[in-house]
Amino acid sequence: MKAIVNVRLKKGVLDPQGRAIAEALRGLGFDEAADARVGKVIEIELDETDPERAAARAKEMAAKLLANPVIESWTVEIAA
Amino acid sequence: MKAIVNVRLKKGVLDPQGRAIAEALRGLGFDEAADARVGKVIEIELDETDPERAAARAKEMAAKLLANPVIESWTVEIAA
Repeated sequence: MKAIVNVRLKKGVLDPQGRAIAEALRGLGFDEAADARVGKVIEIELDETDPERAAARAKEMAAKLLANPVIESWTVEIAA
Repeated sequence: MKAIVNVRLKKGVLDPQGRAIAEALRGLGFDEAADARVGKVIEIELDETDPERAAARAKEMAAKLLANPVIESWTVEIAA
């Protein structure tokens, strides 16, 4: 079973990496690139057969390791 | 208009970051975490009104800057 954890910066949190990407894109001639924000996706192979238990554990993993709860929010999807 | 670029390591490409995450998870007691792979999601605000043109340009952005075509693959979604 696979858990897909999507981690994003919370609204209002400055994203210097995204700003740098947008500037680099404009430097390459993509003038329409007004701004950018970067998130991460962590796909975890789980030795687990119960989707509900997998989702609960993946949320725990996100809170304890995969995301910084102060500045990031996350969602969890379970794929068979 | 917003372009959402999902970048993933190609199948078969070693993911040391993912390996480290899986090990750290097991170290925290998540024994069911067999392996992990990390990808990134770049959301780009575009000063563009034509979805087709936005998608074409976002693919160009991915190929030129956002992804490493040798080891990464990407998909583009356009959100109004």
